[in-house]
Amino acid sequence: MVVGFEKAVSATKSVVTSAKKAPTTLSSNRVINFARGDPTMYESYWRQMGEKCTIVISGHNLMSYFSNAGHFCWFLMPELDRAIRRLHCVVGNAVVDDDRYIVVGNGSTQLFQAVLYALSSSYDPDTEPLSVVAAAPFYSSYPEETDFLRSGLYKWAGDAYSFDKDGAYIEVVTSPNNPDGAIREAVVNRDGGKLIHDLAYYWPQYTPITGKADNDIMLFTFSKATGHAGSRIGWAIVKDIEVATKMVKFMELSSIGVSKESQLRAAKILEVISDDCQNSAPDKEENFFEYGQRLMSDRWEKLREVVKRNGVFSLPKYPQDYCNFIGKYTDPSPAFAWLKSKDGLNCDNLLRELKIVTRGGTNFGVDSNYTRISMLSPDEDFNLLLEKLSAIKGTIINGNN
Amino acid sequence: MVVGFEKAVSATKSVVTSAKKAPTTLSSNRVINFARGDPTMYESYWRQMGEKCTIVISGHNLMSYFSNAGHFCWFLMPELDRAIRRLHCVVGNAVVDDDRYIVVGNGSTQLFQAVLYALSSSYDPDTEPLSVVAAAPFYSSYPEETDFLRSGLYKWAGDAYSFDKDGAYIEVVTSPNNPDGAIREAVVNRDGGKLIHDLAYYWPQYTPITGKADNDIMLFTFSKATGHAGSRIGWAIVKDIEVATKMVKFMELSSIGVSKESQLRAAKILEVISDDCQNSAPDKEENFFEYGQRLMSDRWEKLREVVKRNGVFSLPKYPQDYCNFIGKYTDPSPAFAWLKSKDGLNCDNLLRELKIVTRGGTNFGVDSNYTRISMLSPDEDFNLLLEKLSAIKGTIINGNN
Repeated sequence: MVVGFEKAVSATKSVVTSAKKAPTTLSSNRVINFARGDPTMYESYWRQMGEKCTIVISGHNLMSYFSNAGHFCWFLMPELDRAIRRLHCVVGNAVVDDDRYIVVGNGSTQLFQAVLYALSSSYDPDTEPLSVVAAAPFYSSYPEETDFLRSGLYKWAGDAYSFDKDGAYIEVVTSPNNPDGAIREAVVNRDGGKLIHDLAYYWPQYTPITGKADNDIMLFTFSKATGHAGSRIGWAIVKDIEVATKMVKFMELSSIGVSKESQLRAAKILEVISDDCQNSAPDKEENFFEYGQRLMSDRWEKLREVVKRNGVFSLPKYPQDYCNFIGKYTDPSPAFAWLKSKDGLNCDNLLRELKIVTRGGTNFGVDSNYTRISMLSPDEDFNLLLEKLSAIKGTIINGNN
Repeated sequence: MVVGFEKAVSATKSVVTSAKKAPTTLSSNRVINFARGDPTMYESYWRQMGEKCTIVISGHNLMSYFSNAGHFCWFLMPELDRAIRRLHCVVGNAVVDDDRYIVVGNGSTQLFQAVLYALSSSYDPDTEPLSVVAAAPFYSSYPEETDFLRSGLYKWAGDAYSFDKDGAYIEVVTSPNNPDGAIREAVVNRDGGKLIHDLAYYWPQYTPITGKADNDIMLFTFSKATGHAGSRIGWAIVKDIEVATKMVKFMELSSIGVSKESQLRAAKILEVISDDCQNSAPDKEENFFEYGQRLMSDRWEKLREVVKRNGVFSLPKYPQDYCNFIGKYTDPSPAFAWLKSKDGLNCDNLLRELKIVTRGGTNFGVDSNYTRISMLSPDEDFNLLLEKLSAIKGTIINGNN
């Protein structure tokens, strides 16, 4: 996200300075940014919901540090705990039985670091840091989030496929995967391994819900589930109370908990979604996930059509599967398009020349002939992307003249 | 805060199990917790403000990660930046000229760690971690917040008074100080030193405002300024753009910014306080700081009276000074009472026997004959504290029978 933000700014500059080199065959010379996964696409849905999700907070509300003083996660508001469990039951994408513990965080970003701490803090200080791996292509922020404080507890160890050290390790399993949308399972599978399942995109608008995830440590985020990135709310579903308690300790030391205003709002919005999903009235509107799934499949269909026509790139193919939530077979429609240039060109640079800012493959631990494009941008930007990609072949030919 | 929370829970248990030993001369056997600085005292003020500070947020508001994409602190809402600068101008407690940079955080707790990162991340990885010191008694969470991830960048090095290492270091200057309310200045004063000024309590209700603080890095928090601890909003005022930019980088990697709901609410409440402070109508209500200052002085007067009468403890004496904001000489009335037992008894344990939970001196790097008592609890608890302390002498005698 952040890397993308910075790249976007620098990229914008570089494109502007090289404007004379830029093709003139396109209807717009505006720089469009697809490097970030800012889910602004969903704004129109929430706008047409009117006041159903509105919250009102008076000056004297939510003042204490504490939300539930007796509870192991003393800063988690009980109404958010209930709303999270209810939504997972309604969608059927994760097991949230009473013996599962929920920890709220300032986005799943903070929770990812809380898990690293929880899984490594009991290790002997004299042993070397615990290795953290993920199968490439992996989320571009994992390496920096793991290493930026040079912790003696854990250390980024790169691509899980090439990890060959003995002993304890942590593998992050992101499914559906960011950037390539693949359904993932652990790849190292050795004794002493602990798994973090990042399930930020395991929602019906992105992939068929084929069953309830039941992993030891599962991370979800409000940002990708509903599009409310500005609220910075993420949650973990954890089987082991000791791990959950250490995560809470991390949250205490890192930020003394999580904004109550955001928790209150997330609880309200998740409850409204659950209500709509359970509404069986014959004339009912489509619920949030049906809306998102329809929008995303439509975008993917258009993108595949353009990519097929221009012949310069390829996109991953995903198997259709039965979605228990939608109640029919659906095609996966990931939050990011993982674009590959057929002739080995630097995909990111090529698109920047067209003022399309993306996040290149090297950020994800693979080659530069791949790049990641956000599929969650506003309609106007997405349509401009399609237009620019349609014109790209001619552009390249012009560029070669 | 957190240490206090945990101690509170365990303390409650220990007191309950030793109930038969507890004195029976008091009107209440309820355990009262003064270990935390939860500022719930202010709730009544905000309640009587009615809807003046109410915020309303619709489902489609505040969705993007970004608040100000072109700005170095891209997640800081411009209205909060303005409200913070305006309040400091109105109160006159800090310089906020245009060449000062504001960074928002999830409480000043996260900002403290962002500063440690900003001041140490450019150091050679092969050199040993940068020493972090503070003069004892120091805020009980500094050591653990500095060391819990065993960072290779920085390391807690204890009491600044006994720090004798050469080379670069970071000194945290907390003024007024937590726990003892003293007005502080740096004590190490050697080449290569960087200072963090934690000014969480530099507000008129706690201490006379004698001038505008103008330090390189100043930390403030919504929790202590207005009592809104649940919002997790803190801010730093920074002179060096490079330091501010590295702090933003930390915030990106740690939590991709800060809750917009909390920022919006903080902006609203800070603006209302500034409006009230600038209201010159003859029949105007007392403003928030006048209210807080009156309440705190009243509490301190009552506490000093009780402590004087029972003769078991002593409290620090503070020089009266002219408060530029209140416009007259005022007595400091810190957010915590730093209690010392005259006969060298373990102050914390002694009070726990009376079901008064406090935070003992050893948490702050000094002896156990000191303990810290929050002065920000609800009236009911504070009055019960006075009652229990009044009875303590007889209780100790009973206990010795």
